[in-house]
Amino acid sequence: MTSVDLNADMGESFGLWKMGNDAELLKIISSANIACGGHAGDPDVMERTMALAAQNGVGIGAHPGFADIAGFGRFRMHLPTGTLQNMVRYQVAAHTGMAKAFGHEVRHLKLHGALANMCSEDEDMAAACYEAALSVAPDLIVMVLAGTAQQRAVTRLGCSWAGEIFADRAYNDDATLVDRSKPGAVIHDAALAGPRIAKMVKAGAIITESGQHIPAQIDTICVHGDTPEALDIARSVRAALEADGVSITPFEGHR
Amino acid sequence: MTSVDLNADMGESFGLWKMGNDAELLKIISSANIACGGHAGDPDVMERTMALAAQNGVGIGAHPGFADIAGFGRFRMHLPTGTLQNMVRYQVAAHTGMAKAFGHEVRHLKLHGALANMCSEDEDMAAACYEAALSVAPDLIVMVLAGTAQQRAVTRLGCSWAGEIFADRAYNDDATLVDRSKPGAVIHDAALAGPRIAKMVKAGAIITESGQHIPAQIDTICVHGDTPEALDIARSVRAALEADGVSITPFEGHR
Amino acid sequence: MTSVDLNADMGESFGLWKMGNDAELLKIISSANIACGGHAGDPDVMERTMALAAQNGVGIGAHPGFADIAGFGRFRMHLPTGTLQNMVRYQVAAHTGMAKAFGHEVRHLKLHGALANMCSEDEDMAAACYEAALSVAPDLIVMVLAGTAQQRAVTRLGCSWAGEIFADRAYNDDATLVDRSKPGAVIHDAALAGPRIAKMVKAGAIITESGQHIPAQIDTICVHGDTPEALDIARSVRAALEADGVSITPFEGHR
Amino acid sequence: MTSVDLNADMGESFGLWKMGNDAELLKIISSANIACGGHAGDPDVMERTMALAAQNGVGIGAHPGFADIAGFGRFRMHLPTGTLQNMVRYQVAAHTGMAKAFGHEVRHLKLHGALANMCSEDEDMAAACYEAALSVAPDLIVMVLAGTAQQRAVTRLGCSWAGEIFADRAYNDDATLVDRSKPGAVIHDAALAGPRIAKMVKAGAIITESGQHIPAQIDTICVHGDTPEALDIARSVRAALEADGVSITPFEGHR
Repeated sequence: MTSVDLNADMGESFGLWKMGNDAELLKIISSANIACGGHAGDPDVMERTMALAAQNGVGIGAHPGFADIAGFGRFRMHLPTGTLQNMVRYQVAAHTGMAKAFGHEVRHLKLHGALANMCSEDEDMAAACYEAALSVAPDLIVMVLAGTAQQRAVTRLGCSWAGEIFADRAYNDDATLVDRSKPGAVIHDAALAGPRIAKMVKAGAIITESGQHIPAQIDTICVHGDTPEALDIARSVRAALEADGVSITPFEGHR
Repeated sequence: MTSVDLNADMGESFGLWKMGNDAELLKIISSANIACGGHAGDPDVMERTMALAAQNGVGIGAHPGFADIAGFGRFRMHLPTGTLQNMVRYQVAAHTGMAKAFGHEVRHLKLHGALANMCSEDEDMAAACYEAALSVAPDLIVMVLAGTAQQRAVTRLGCSWAGEIFADRAYNDDATLVDRSKPGAVIHDAALAGPRIAKMVKAGAIITESGQHIPAQIDTICVHGDTPEALDIARSVRAALEADGVSITPFEGHR
Repeated sequence: MTSVDLNADMGESFGLWKMGNDAELLKIISSANIACGGHAGDPDVMERTMALAAQNGVGIGAHPGFADIAGFGRFRMHLPTGTLQNMVRYQVAAHTGMAKAFGHEVRHLKLHGALANMCSEDEDMAAACYEAALSVAPDLIVMVLAGTAQQRAVTRLGCSWAGEIFADRAYNDDATLVDRSKPGAVIHDAALAGPRIAKMVKAGAIITESGQHIPAQIDTICVHGDTPEALDIARSVRAALEADGVSITPFEGHR
Repeated sequence: MTSVDLNADMGESFGLWKMGNDAELLKIISSANIACGGHAGDPDVMERTMALAAQNGVGIGAHPGFADIAGFGRFRMHLPTGTLQNMVRYQVAAHTGMAKAFGHEVRHLKLHGALANMCSEDEDMAAACYEAALSVAPDLIVMVLAGTAQQRAVTRLGCSWAGEIFADRAYNDDATLVDRSKPGAVIHDAALAGPRIAKMVKAGAIITESGQHIPAQIDTICVHGDTPEALDIARSVRAALEADGVSITPFEGHR
């Protein structure tokens, strides 16, 4: 692989409340997952974040979540399928329509928080969400957590997609994430994080804690910007990949 | 004039709360102003209402209002212009994108409640809202309160528009509405309402309480459906117009 | 038993949206579960509903639910315990403080919707909610679904409580409700509903679909007012009880 | 005067979004105005902030604002008086009830943002808000902007109150604030801010830009903590007052 994508969540400020360090992250990543006003973001934040992404040549993605500002979309909610789909439609429509008004294109879709977690376990729920998003914007590339029910959902739908792994999380031998409560579950050491991911990209596989290789479609790597440490990890991943001759460019979807 | 439009606000239910009598109104009107989730409506209500309008051959319009569900958009809010515009962009984008996902077309825009009232007094504010809506959906026909700052705003913008009068409100000699606190301000008598409006449409003028004729662009007449009385007035207006040989059809915009 | 309580949820209007028929219900019941602005209700609705209950000599109760107006508190949300408790504290504090400002007393607590359902299955969650409510208003009588984890929670806490059964739901032999999807799960026949409940009250037991008697603490019977049929059932229950010499009065708690 | 109070707004974080530097401010001030979940704050934030204030021996105050999280209560809203009063009642009830649940006492009331601004210009509106708050918690000391309609309102009501001036704002000769758009309107120089306020406190007067003395009831001085500069100003004010022999202690109300 000669190129890979780096993605990060952003546009998660709300009203006067700031979150994250979008400006710094945008110098590192190639795809931005921008909140749609459901779990975070508001119309002003969306305008500003889209403009900033565009100025940095970073691909814009819609990042819908449970419509729960107070909870930041991090709590699981059990909605009827039709209601869930309309929630996604509404957010993706608002997002892509705002983008178009400002002359931007929305390239991809990534689910947020508890919505993403539930969909990584439930193929039907994932398919329902993706179908809803694609009913609004048929050309979206769906970003999925590699090896989860999200990936099975896009395969079933036959839509354009891209596979994602985390820069800062350890993996179990069944490709699930090591539970956050366990030691080593979250990578804090930037010096370690970069080479680790570069190795996985080169291998085309998730490398688990025990050293096993699980072949995976690695099109994009998720980084964070909410702490100085997170930014360092993001920079380390980018540097290690480039040192290996892998360029950082927005992903293309495949089917 | 051989045809005119009848319009009504609808899709103003929210969650489990019902409002209005959309099904009955849709048998009478030719254009539906459907709430966008700002002051009322939610994604499920939007889906249902758009489908119902389409089934009845009624034109669909976006009906944004202040993003204040608790207040139903009926309280004046003073927002910075950019924030106001993004509020409108967001709602119109969500609305038109949802419509497209379900195969419907959004033909027109009408502002709601306190937002409409403020814009009928403030040409700059009206122009800012319309410009924002058109940045998302350039082909929208903007419905304006005839003879107000709303009309001056569309004239300034040079966009496609349609003029509106109220079926159930008395007018002062300067084309403003008689204050609701005054006797006769609101027409309650369906037998009276129909012929009164038919006369205005034939005259191409608002006929004031004192009997004066104020030439006006009357493309559409606003009716209501929130009470049995309101439905009777709507039916009376339709019947009186048809008796005069005026057909009820969706308006075309003009510039 | 010579007296029993009838309770109903109310104060579930929101802004301009009306729900239920509180005025009619208040002629029938003895305890009103009034929404706290979380899943429904707003400060104006709270004032009006409390006043109406007081005028009818009906006991006022706080009725907190998930803080999700759009979902009416009917969708399950998974919150950390501390967050859940503060959500309950906030709503109960707002409710009891509003009541005091208007000279009313809040006698009891009843959980709403998905929050109630989850707590009827999870004793720890129920205890956490009750403890939170009692930290704000220590004298509240906690209304529990008889025979569920809710009852086990009040027993564990040693607080004052009252047991509740439903006027319009059939019971399985393990005291759980017959699933709504099954025939006969919901009682629609007012003529049947009254005598059926009167029999249970006389027996001091839930009588299941199969005819089994499950001894239960029946202090209050939940009726509804959202349909004409529901009101008829409520009236039927009251009439049948009174015909049996059972008076309808607000419950006293026991420990 | 041998003692004066320093107050600051806090508890304005929301969900995962942080705002301000409450921990640092609490080392400087003697009264904390804690948001009530209307314009900012949520039940968890309220619990944390009250606990922190109590640990620092700082007086707790309720700080209600327009119920507009997206707008942070900074936009003017025009509500009917009864609705406005119930909005205040609800927030103050939630706040004081939460405090009581955790063993804290709420000593004072201060209005937030656009609500405060409108009430500093409109005596009737201010009186309506204060009356509503006192209907919930009759012993609250009402903090008013000295010399404004807020002060006239508490005088009219005959309630317990305390007068406030700003540490970082210049005053016109009519005791209004110099418009923010004018040079010198906001004091940025900590070295200047402290002695300036100490002089006013000693004089018992607002000293205007032109040097005029307007006698004023100065019981408390409002400082901020949202920037490092603001914290420096707060520290400077405290230091200058203490150097003058004025101790920083929570105010007592007067009538």
